[in-house]
Parts: sequence; C-alpha cells; structure tokens
Amino acid sequence: MQLGLVGLGKMGGNMRERLRAAGHEVVGFDRNPEVSDVASVAELVEKLAAPRAVWVMVPAGVTEATIDELAGLLDAGDIIVDGGNSRYSDDGPRAARLGAQGIGYVDAGVSGGVWGRENGYALMVGGAPEHVERLMPIFDALKPAGEFGFVHAGPVGAGHYSKMVHNGIEYALMHAYAEGYELMAASELITDVPGVIKSWREGTVVRSWLLDLLDAALEADPQLAGLRGYADDTGEGRWTVEEAIRLAVPMNVIAASLFARFTSRQEDSPAMKAVAALRNQFGGHAIHKNP
Amino acid sequence: MQLGLVGLGKMGGNMRERLRAAGHEVVGFDRNPEVSDVASVAELVEKLAAPRAVWVMVPAGVTEATIDELAGLLDAGDIIVDGGNSRYSDDGPRAARLGAQGIGYVDAGVSGGVWGRENGYALMVGGAPEHVERLMPIFDALKPAGEFGFVHAGPVGAGHYSKMVHNGIEYALMHAYAEGYELMAASELITDVPGVIKSWREGTVVRSWLLDLLDAALEADPQLAGLRGYADDTGEGRWTVEEAIRLAVPMNVIAASLFARFTSRQEDSPAMKAVAALRNQFGGHAIHKNP
Amino acid sequence: MQLGLVGLGKMGGNMRERLRAAGHEVVGFDRNPEVSDVASVAELVEKLAAPRAVWVMVPAGVTEATIDELAGLLDAGDIIVDGGNSRYSDDGPRAARLGAQGIGYVDAGVSGGVWGRENGYALMVGGAPEHVERLMPIFDALKPAGEFGFVHAGPVGAGHYSKMVHNGIEYALMHAYAEGYELMAASELITDVPGVIKSWREGTVVRSWLLDLLDAALEADPQLAGLRGYADDTGEGRWTVEEAIRLAVPMNVIAASLFARFTSRQEDSPAMKAVAALRNQFGGHAIHKNP
Amino acid sequence: MQLGLVGLGKMGGNMRERLRAAGHEVVGFDRNPEVSDVASVAELVEKLAAPRAVWVMVPAGVTEATIDELAGLLDAGDIIVDGGNSRYSDDGPRAARLGAQGIGYVDAGVSGGVWGRENGYALMVGGAPEHVERLMPIFDALKPAGEFGFVHAGPVGAGHYSKMVHNGIEYALMHAYAEGYELMAASELITDVPGVIKSWREGTVVRSWLLDLLDAALEADPQLAGLRGYADDTGEGRWTVEEAIRLAVPMNVIAASLFARFTSRQEDSPAMKAVAALRNQFGGHAIHKNP
Repeated sequence: MQLGLVGLGKMGGNMRERLRAAGHEVVGFDRNPEVSDVASVAELVEKLAAPRAVWVMVPAGVTEATIDELAGLLDAGDIIVDGGNSRYSDDGPRAARLGAQGIGYVDAGVSGGVWGRENGYALMVGGAPEHVERLMPIFDALKPAGEFGFVHAGPVGAGHYSKMVHNGIEYALMHAYAEGYELMAASELITDVPGVIKSWREGTVVRSWLLDLLDAALEADPQLAGLRGYADDTGEGRWTVEEAIRLAVPMNVIAASLFARFTSRQEDSPAMKAVAALRNQFGGHAIHKNP
Repeated sequence: MQLGLVGLGKMGGNMRERLRAAGHEVVGFDRNPEVSDVASVAELVEKLAAPRAVWVMVPAGVTEATIDELAGLLDAGDIIVDGGNSRYSDDGPRAARLGAQGIGYVDAGVSGGVWGRENGYALMVGGAPEHVERLMPIFDALKPAGEFGFVHAGPVGAGHYSKMVHNGIEYALMHAYAEGYELMAASELITDVPGVIKSWREGTVVRSWLLDLLDAALEADPQLAGLRGYADDTGEGRWTVEEAIRLAVPMNVIAASLFARFTSRQEDSPAMKAVAALRNQFGGHAIHKNP
Repeated sequence: MQLGLVGLGKMGGNMRERLRAAGHEVVGFDRNPEVSDVASVAELVEKLAAPRAVWVMVPAGVTEATIDELAGLLDAGDIIVDGGNSRYSDDGPRAARLGAQGIGYVDAGVSGGVWGRENGYALMVGGAPEHVERLMPIFDALKPAGEFGFVHAGPVGAGHYSKMVHNGIEYALMHAYAEGYELMAASELITDVPGVIKSWREGTVVRSWLLDLLDAALEADPQLAGLRGYADDTGEGRWTVEEAIRLAVPMNVIAASLFARFTSRQEDSPAMKAVAALRNQFGGHAIHKNP
Repeated sequence: MQLGLVGLGKMGGNMRERLRAAGHEVVGFDRNPEVSDVASVAELVEKLAAPRAVWVMVPAGVTEATIDELAGLLDAGDIIVDGGNSRYSDDGPRAARLGAQGIGYVDAGVSGGVWGRENGYALMVGGAPEHVERLMPIFDALKPAGEFGFVHAGPVGAGHYSKMVHNGIEYALMHAYAEGYELMAASELITDVPGVIKSWREGTVVRSWLLDLLDAALEADPQLAGLRGYADDTGEGRWTVEEAIRLAVPMNVIAASLFARFTSRQEDSPAMKAVAALRNQFGGHAIHKNP
C-alpha cells in the first residue's frame, strides 16, 4: 500500500527501506533534501491517494508541529501514525483534535534500534480497531518475521504506553547486568569477567539479547576502558516512574536504574556534599576539600 | 569417562541421564534407594577406578557432611566437584582441607533448572587448571551445544562466585519485568497486557528467556490470579548483596529486588506500623487498627 | 491586623485561635456553620476593610474553587494566601490570573500538625516582597517563638515548594527510623526495643522530634500491636519525587520511602506474583496458591 | 569509683575529663605518653584495686589485641567494657572467652562525637545485669543530664547492636536531608536554600539535631562549595544492612544511603560504563570516551 513517511533519520530511513523491500510504495519527506523524496510535506500529501496514511517519525521535540502541519493538509478519512517516542499522555488530546477533523490517529511504539532494518521492528500500537486494521500491511512489513513483535495494545495511547514501559524495563535490565558486571570486576576471584559474561549466553536463566550485546561490547573492549560511565536518558524511563507514582505502583528497581543515570551525569553530588558536611559537623570526620 | 555422582534429585537425576546419553559411565548414589545405583557412598567410591572424580549435587545443608564423608574414602589424586549452591567463601577452606590429603577440588555453578536435561546446563567452574582439564569431558557433556554455556572463571571459588552473581542478576531481571507488568496491569489504557508481553519476544531490546517464561506463565493464567505474590530466596541473592557491601560496590537494583522478596513474605510490615504510628502522632492521621 | 480565614478545620480552626490570642482580628468562614463566624465567603469579604488579606486553608481538592470564588469578590490591592497543600506548580498560573485583577498572591507551606496551636506553625512562604511584607504580622503570630520557623523562600511557588521538599524529607526520616525499629524488633538480642528508642532522645546523632514521637507511640503500644502497617500519602511525597525526576536529581532514599507506602496499601503485589510465576517456570519452585 | 581507661584519643580523652569532673578516679593509658597517666597497660591494672573495671576505647582494629592483653593481666571478678565500634557479633565469643577466666564483659555503644564532653554521651549497653549494675556510676557520669541517653538494651552484644542500628538510621537521616537539599539547590524557585533549612529548625516535623548541624554547615559555607561530595563509612552502616539481610528485613532506605556513599568514592562507575556500552550497542547512542 501507499504510505507517507515524514522523518528519514536513523529510524525512518531504515524503515523506508524495509517497507519498500516488502513492496510498499513509500513517499518520504525529510528536511534534508539529500534523503527526501519530495520537497515539502505538502508535496508528500499531494502524491498520496486518499484515504491517505502518513507515518510521522521525527524527534519528540518537533512531533507536535509536524502533526499540526499535516492536519492542515490532510482530509477526513486520512490517518496519521506517530511512531516517535511521544509521551502517551499526549496521544489522547492529539487524537481528539484530529478526530474533530475526521482524521484518524494511531500511536506506535517502535523498538529495534539500529538492528531493525534487518531483524524487523517490534511494534506496540494503540488506536481504534478500524484504523489499526487499515495499517496492518505496513505493520506486517515492519515487524519481525515470526509470530511475535506486534501488538495492538489498546485504544489511542496504549502503543506509546507499552513502549514507555518497555523502555523502563530496559533501563533496569541493563542496570542489573551492570551491577553484576561491576561486582565481578571488583572481585579478586574472577580472572575472566568477559568469559563469564560470554558463557551465560546459553543455558542460563539470565540469557537475553542485552546479554549478547554486553558480550559484544566486552569483546571490543574487555575492560570498557575506552568509555566513561555516563548515560543520558530519553524520557521513557522518567515517564515510567512518573506513571508508577500516579498509579501508586511500587517501582524501586526501575527508579533506581533511572537515578543511577542521573548520578552518572553529575560532576559532583550536592547530596553527598551535604552528607560530608554533616559528618564533619558531628564527628569531626575529615572532609575532602575542593582545590 | 567414569564419574561418581552423589545426589540424584531434580538436578542430579537429570544430569545423570544427560551424561549417560553422552556415553559416560555414571555411578550415582542417593539416599533414596529407588533412584540410587549403589547402596552407599563407600560402594560408589569402590566402583570407580582411581584417579576418581566424584560430583556432589546435594542440598546446601548437607554438602559439607557429604564432602567430609567422601574425603574419608577417596585417595590422593582424586577430585571432588561441588555442583551445589555453596557460598563461594566456603570453597577456599574446603579446597585447602582436601588439598592436604592430595584430593583436588573444583566448584561448579550450575544453571538451567528443569530445562537442563534437554538444553544443557550452563557451567561456571572454579579450580586449578589441571583439575578442570581432567573434568572437561564431563563439562562438555553437561553444557549446552554451541560455543557458550561454559567458563573456567578462575581459581577455586570462582565458579560459585559467578553463579552467585548470575543469580543476583536474575533477581533483578525478574523484578524489572515484574514492575513493568504491574504498571501495565494497573493502567486503564492497556487492554491486553499478556499480548504486550508476548509481542516483546521478538525485535525488542527486552527480549530474553525470562520474558519467554513470563509469556508462558501468562498463557496459563492471564491475570496470575491463581498464585500469591510470595517469593522465597535461596541464598545467592543475599550473598551477592553482602559481597557488594564487602567490596563497596553500589547495588541498588539487585538489593531492591532482594528486599521485595523479604517484603513479600511478611504478613504485615513492622516498619510501616512505625510509619503509621508516627503519622498518627504528628498529624492525627487515621490509623488502620488491627481487629 | 484583620485577616479573613476560609477553612476552619483541624488546621484552620487552631490557627484562628493562635491569631486571636496574638491580638489579631480574624473573620473565619467554614462550610460548617457551627464553627463559622460568617454565613458566606461574600459576608467574610464584606466584613474586612480594604486592602484585605484572606488566608485560604481548605482541602487541596477545593482550593482552586475557593480561590476563584474569592477572586470574584475581592478588589485590586487585596491579597490571597494559600496555606493549603497545593502543588507548587499551580501557584504561578494562579498568581498570574489573580495578578491580572490586581490581587496579590502568596503561597504558604504550613507545618506543625496538631501541635501547631501551642508550639506555633513553621511557615515557608513564597511571593512578592511587598505582599509578604504586608502579611508579616500574621506570619509572626503564627510562627513559633524564637528565631526559626519562618522563611521567605523565594517568589510565588517557593513556599509550597519548600513545604513539598520538607514533606519528602519527612517521609524518608520516618522510614529510616522505621527500618531501624523493624531490625531491632526482629533481633533476638535486643530485649527492650522501646527502651533503646527512648534512650536515643538525648545525646545521640539521631535525636529529633520524630524520634520523640516514636517514643510516645511505643509508650502507648510497645509492640505497635494495635495498628496495621498501612500508610496513606497526601501528595507532597509524590511531587517531590516527580520534581526530582524533572530536574534529574537522584532520589533513591525518598523514593524508596514513598514506594514503601504504596506497597503498604496493597493486598497482594502483582509484581511479586510475576516473580513467583517466573520462579515456578524456570526452577519448578513451589508457588503459594490462592485459595 | 575507680576506672581504668585504655585509649585517650578524641573520644577517650574527653570521656576521662567528663568522668573526673564527676568525681571518679580515672587511670588512663594511651600509646601516646603525652596524654597517658601510666606507662603501660600492666601499670594501669596495678594501679586499680580489685575488683577492677577497665574501659577499652581504642580503634576497632586494635580492640581485640587490647582486650587480649588485658585478659592476661586481670583477675576473676574484674570487668572489661568495650566502648568502641565493634561488630556486635564479636561480643558473644569475646564474653565467653573472658567468662572462662571469670572476667565480666560489657559492650557499650557510645554516641555523641565531639560534643559528648559537654552534652554527655548517649550509651547503649549490653551485658549481664550484675555487671551493668556495678558500672552504673560510670554510665551515670558519662550520659547526658536528664532522663534519656542510657539504655541497658539486653545481654552481651545488645549494646553494640543498638549502636549499629543507630548509625544505620543516621546514614539514612543524613541522606534524606541531603536529597531534599540537592533538590532545592537544583530548583530555580528557591532563592534562599540555607534560609529554608534554617527555618525548619522550629515548628516543623523534620526538626532534629542533624538539621541544626546542616544549618551550621550552611552558615559556614552557603553552597558547600569548599568540599567534595565524598563520604567514608565506618562499618556500622554495612553491618546494619548485612544484619537486615540475615533477618530478611527489607531495608531499602538505609541500604540506598549506604550505596550512595560507595558511589561517592568512585572516580567512575564500572556499572555505568556497562550501561553506556549497552546503549551504544543497541541504539547507536553516543558514548563519552575516555581521553
């Protein structure tokens, strides 16, 4: 089928290729004319036959503006898919706004990173059944082969919600391996830490794709000496914990992995300065002075 | 090769079968005469030609006594393997004691659970190179096919140490999925929680064997209505956190998953009683009285 | 000076008494006619000479409506104080709305609970200097004797912000004592847990008002046998962690004390059901079935 | 009464003064001849009339050796008090060893730091009633005036146990304030963070001695600019969490404050290196390279 695709970056560009390889007709737009099929969003809309489907795959900061621009160009009966990492709570109001114009809205959480073009993209989708149904040929082409990798998780918002939770879990899984790695690296007993990690890839309870990646990273740099313990976060982890707070769900593990990222980005810890100051006050404990 | 195997329970019994299927000669002893090949440990030792190798696969509580009994029967040049879940810190003293008699000692962390007979057992091994070398035919038969699933992690103790860390990581991985599951179950948006979990099995960053098992559990009982949120712990998780404390390794994530198990086993929380009492004291907040 | 006071519940009623005892003229309104000085908010406004000051001390759920009602009755030059537990992020928009009518707005975080009438109320205030200045006679009457207990923390919002952080800290302080209490109660060594707590009230590093209250609670019920380990939360703890997430501040300790409250209110833990289900899947570990 | 006092450092020296001011006869020994009353432990023992009482107040590392030396010099009927920060689990075996010689043993947790000479030392004491009874004049002189500051917490070990829990709580109290401090310091709204802290000293739920000290520290350095966020730990915090693990007591809050200290001492986090490596593997996320 025909699909408009706005945003041809690392993710969107690969998705266009995977869709075309599956026989779909993709009209792609990107601000970068070197990768764009058309000169403008307006031209993209013109090239599609109604009822149209346009997939938006742009950075979170410009998603709203992109959808607003599309809403001014599309007709009733068209559908917009947001495949970016929007906060799920933006989806409902957005769908209502578009729905007032008769435009359908589907939110799609997309996982798979740089491996997606080859292995397929896991898709978590939220929206009305009739909209999701219409897009199934696109979803089928994007998703991995096999029986898994796609879910219609619920109404509008449920796709981004599932992706948010997926990423929250991801933070904690990564940190679980990371803590175990650090402990073994600190121990005098384990003489082959990368070897232990590698051995776990088969037959163990902890085997996973993330473990395979940790093995690959240690193959490349057995002591991870070349990089700093610094990790950004892209929003979903924060939203997961915020949502847990809203719903009164205890979330110690995922929250701790989020807080560890915050700590990793601090030059010095104001909280620990306060602790050091207190210890000095009551116990005369030595403090480490700044130069 | 020949192997003595003491302990033919859920793990040992399956290991005997896997070893025999690989062509090894296994003489097994168990207190339960119905599964035992010999009438006593002494008879087991008699049936093996020196230099002997005896694998001990008994509950942690009787490991020490079993090894002591064996030490009284074996000769210099023989090797004992402890495949149980011993604390790594017991291995060094034990190896020294046996070494004084000329008996070798190898500690083997074994993962794989009830799936091991078919898929193979992941093995993490600690010991002197010459002892590990001699046992390689056994390890090769037990481990999964393929290049992974076995590591000689270091000297005596390194096998159990690696297994301890493996289990600590396992606690946190499980709890990461569990928190995400609880959040989705609490949300009004996700109408098909088991479907989301199932979809993650391909193409996502969080795919893993544990996720496959969570899918299987939800297939069987989509709301986990039939079981209580109660989890025992078998020692390795505690040891992992204790070791982190010893080595001053921050371990918020694994520790939180351990503490969650402790909480799961409490009828009521004494700590939260104290919190409730304090809130009542300063704010006149209502308390929930015991009947 | 003259003050209108809307809301004469546990807090507002005591504040009226403390203000009158200090010589101020307080016109109080409450929905409950038995405690109210006037029949309506409108009558309250009438009884005050311009420029008026009205302190709103109502439950969070009706604060917005109360302030809207007042805004329709007051004149330019009047001031509204919100002494309730509003989220700090509501203060800015509210002040802007009122400011468009020329009405001043001050947010006041109030601590002290049921002890405030006697000991004074700690006040954390946000607002423009000229508004805060005008209200100082009221603040001086409400605050405790001595040099502490009052701060002008910053512009509009800073008062509620400080109170929010105060309560977040309070959660963690309480839980710190609670964990120590539980550990001693679980130990076989400590034969007089209430005695240990009581002894800490002088000379120790952990002495505090909360510790005094814990001692009082244990005096009344040495094993806290009469109450359940159940604790509500009133919003500030959640907001504190949300704000930490917004500002990327690591907050493991306060977050853990918040999550412990969530756990305390669960009949059973969905997360721990998932953990139990997983342990059963891979290890054949026994599960505790629901009846 | 007469007391031998071994160890005249920051704590022991001040205790000698407080005891003498109360009319007791103290014979003190220290390796440093400038502060010592006698030339050797042997001379100290000679100067005391039987039945003797000797208080040991030396660094944890030399406590065992000091007590062994004393045991060789004392007679049946004498008592040794260990006032240092020993692990409670050392007390039982030590008491048994001394008991075989007829020497009594009392363990005393001592709190108060550099403020103790003036304000008194809070004492948590474990031991047999007859031994504790005999030492009451000493305890009465050391403890703060007033009804609090002393407890006979249970049999041998209970004193150090109580002190251990006291210190575990102390870690978490300090970190609770520290997290709140950091949040306010990060906020754009609070223009006077030290002012907010100071205001809390009266009338609030969070008022405490530690808060007074935080105020003092901020008086001296309003942004804590002069010191690094680095904190050692002296053992009791670790033991508290280890004991919680032994007794299956959930301890998220105290453990998190302990782990924060570990983190504060790391140049870089091996765990976060692993997280950064994983993010780079699956998402192509930029890593921060080491120079």
